[in-house]
Amino acid sequence: MPTLVLIRHGQSAWNLENRFTGWWDVDVTEKGVEEARDAGRLMKDRGLDFDLCFTSLQTRAIKTLNLALEEMGRLWLPVEKDWRLNERHYGGLTGLDKAETAARHGDEQVHIWRRSFDIPPPPIEPGSEYDLSNDRRYAGIDVPATESLKDTIARVLPYWRARIGPALQGGQRVLISAHGNSLRALVKHLSGISDEEIASLEIPTGQPIVYELDDSLAATDRYYLRER
Amino acid sequence: MPTLVLIRHGQSAWNLENRFTGWWDVDVTEKGVEEARDAGRLMKDRGLDFDLCFTSLQTRAIKTLNLALEEMGRLWLPVEKDWRLNERHYGGLTGLDKAETAARHGDEQVHIWRRSFDIPPPPIEPGSEYDLSNDRRYAGIDVPATESLKDTIARVLPYWRARIGPALQGGQRVLISAHGNSLRALVKHLSGISDEEIASLEIPTGQPIVYELDDSLAATDRYYLRER
Repeated sequence: MPTLVLIRHGQSAWNLENRFTGWWDVDVTEKGVEEARDAGRLMKDRGLDFDLCFTSLQTRAIKTLNLALEEMGRLWLPVEKDWRLNERHYGGLTGLDKAETAARHGDEQVHIWRRSFDIPPPPIEPGSEYDLSNDRRYAGIDVPATESLKDTIARVLPYWRARIGPALQGGQRVLISAHGNSLRALVKHLSGISDEEIASLEIPTGQPIVYELDDSLAATDRYYLRER
Repeated sequence: MPTLVLIRHGQSAWNLENRFTGWWDVDVTEKGVEEARDAGRLMKDRGLDFDLCFTSLQTRAIKTLNLALEEMGRLWLPVEKDWRLNERHYGGLTGLDKAETAARHGDEQVHIWRRSFDIPPPPIEPGSEYDLSNDRRYAGIDVPATESLKDTIARVLPYWRARIGPALQGGQRVLISAHGNSLRALVKHLSGISDEEIASLEIPTGQPIVYELDDSLAATDRYYLRER
């Protein structure tokens, strides 16, 4: 029976400052480091083990994975990094304080940008200090100017189908370290959550989510791994 | 012109205790962590950059790579981990204190085991606490019971030819984080060092070694990257 564990990166500096982050490459805080280590210890204590890991191209997810693997004595596992597991691109909101944005645009508008399924925030301005379209990390990739959750799902799922699903079906136990919205994409797909409900499903930082799947990769169980 | 940088892992706990380590998975010390971070900062300051990284399946080399990449803002680079970059297997000497071993077997014998080209130490005893033949990290691999430097070279070079050389010739800039003897194998090959001389060539921990190569991967220059 394929084993899949999802983990959202530990607290980042902008989680703490309550700023829209998206593709901007913000590091984890000291608390985030501890969350990642705790997650690794918890997975080890509970007897979870893996054959293959996936993560995004963003430091906070990669570091979370590395710290968890270190605690598990599994730094030697193969890791595949791909932009399609990146966080949702927050467009022109990138870098803005969430409260300040609400004060400027109104709570209702911000709620729509954050919680609607298919309405993206305004596009990032070309030449913005947060514009990553010329970052060599994304060479050859058409970096989005903004993304709705629906847009995010539209690039996560092809990667799931091309790389992660086949690994699971080939018998590999898989750990994915990623972001609130790229993980929502996977949870929506695996747990059959509606367009209306998925945007308000909160995925806490550093909490391993275990999926038990059948051979066709349909979810038979999903639960948070917690201290007993 | 292909760029290749080699780095030996930062100081490990058994470097410090002066014990034979080989394939045993000893972590880096606090000093080793600092050496790795310093190496990353130095490479960044000197304008070095990479497209692809290689390392062994051993924690001390992987952590050294991760720490250096973190300092460079390059944690997102692809990393290929392979047992063929592991340290030389020290057989029955694994875990022994070097001074104690010399007291028991004589300086001359220990010098032969450490510095001869083709004489391996005695094989590790099956069931030894340092026997890794059942470690799942090495599943499918015929874990050696001991290795001479010649044996080490005999598994490093096919990997160089199969994976690293082609990446360099394809225009990728390569960083390799590995071990004293797996790096000796590469330096011997690239710099044409004799069987007699290679075993006494010391490779310091945490010091990036830069190779400038021509298109046929013949070395045109080799130097340690140091603070200006």
